[in-house]
Amino acid sequence: MKLIFTGKTKDVYSLEDGNYLLQFKDDVTGEDGVFDPGANTVGLKIEGAGRAGLRMTKYFFDILQAEGIPTHYIGADIEKATMTVRPAAVFGNGLEVICRYRAVGSFLRRYGMYAKEGQPLDAFVEVTLKDDERQDPPISEDALHMLGILSADEYKVLKALTQQIAGIVKSVLEKKGIDLYDIKFEFGRVGENKEIILIDEISGGNMRAYKDGKYIEPLQLEKLILND
Amino acid sequence: MKLIFTGKTKDVYSLEDGNYLLQFKDDVTGEDGVFDPGANTVGLKIEGAGRAGLRMTKYFFDILQAEGIPTHYIGADIEKATMTVRPAAVFGNGLEVICRYRAVGSFLRRYGMYAKEGQPLDAFVEVTLKDDERQDPPISEDALHMLGILSADEYKVLKALTQQIAGIVKSVLEKKGIDLYDIKFEFGRVGENKEIILIDEISGGNMRAYKDGKYIEPLQLEKLILND
Repeated sequence: MKLIFTGKTKDVYSLEDGNYLLQFKDDVTGEDGVFDPGANTVGLKIEGAGRAGLRMTKYFFDILQAEGIPTHYIGADIEKATMTVRPAAVFGNGLEVICRYRAVGSFLRRYGMYAKEGQPLDAFVEVTLKDDERQDPPISEDALHMLGILSADEYKVLKALTQQIAGIVKSVLEKKGIDLYDIKFEFGRVGENKEIILIDEISGGNMRAYKDGKYIEPLQLEKLILND
Repeated sequence: MKLIFTGKTKDVYSLEDGNYLLQFKDDVTGEDGVFDPGANTVGLKIEGAGRAGLRMTKYFFDILQAEGIPTHYIGADIEKATMTVRPAAVFGNGLEVICRYRAVGSFLRRYGMYAKEGQPLDAFVEVTLKDDERQDPPISEDALHMLGILSADEYKVLKALTQQIAGIVKSVLEKKGIDLYDIKFEFGRVGENKEIILIDEISGGNMRAYKDGKYIEPLQLEKLILND
């Protein structure tokens, strides 16, 4: 087992059999001690955040597997806060694909001239580059294609998978009276035919969820989803 | 004649016959006395800049008319620095459509992880909102559609017209040994059938042009183009 990447909220190890092991950490993105899923810095450390994020990820990846949606998930050890996954190559140096149901966060900061806070959006998909130095800039389908990051066909798959997966998460939350405002995913290519699969995690740190118009913190959200 | 809008580089008057009159000013966009076509503030005043911009605009609008490309242009009075145009309604509160042949400016600031300065781009089109407060954010086709700013069909027309017009400007510059790096346009809807036409101007202030790898200032560019 060899450490190959140290991320903000996870470390990645390569395993003897060619798969990867993800070590979930208790670090949470945010600024000045306040959680923000859109932030590029680790804002705070919360005891148990890693294990809670992994439990929620396992919960959703199991649902996706049952729905026939390809992910990198193989297995998880909740106690150790580790997840075994298939090795996937990210697009370029990594993309985030966001699905938005309500206008909040960076969408509102950019398009506030035309959108009101909390206004419904129709599963709007946008892609941002993982680039801390340049504040994760949004990038268009044409630019992704032109810069060789992905093909036009791959963009279509990415967008369709994003809306499909976000829709599943949204309906799970809805059954508990929780509204999904937005959620971000990462995807990668796997195997010889470069199949596009969901990678990374689906935890409270990847989404903004509200109950009765009030924002729910990630750990609280994970409790509401998992402790039925 | 009635003043209906005071812009950064032009004032707009409505005429008795329903058309508009644009008064070109000697103000140039930029910051701290340095010209920047992407800037949102008037950076300097250059004696004769208005008339020079109008002469170049007339020069290109005449070429476009001959090519059958619809514009708002009716006529110009160079001495008075005024242009008579058809009244067009902008998309939302106004868009800028940019066509890029080389990676410079805001493209490079956003996508510098994947693009080198001056790298050739394949007539790449992007749209930004005219919104000084939010620094003219780029906006995707999907977002334009979803926010009701334009339809998917209108986007196709906008993109095709942009590449066609930029191609014409590029080839005019090429004949004088000048390289067009990028250019921005504005479009509007006119008449009952809401035909999409080019509005505003095509002057040195709307483009970045280089000769022998050296950037050419707008007034110098206008001299090079018009004084054959």
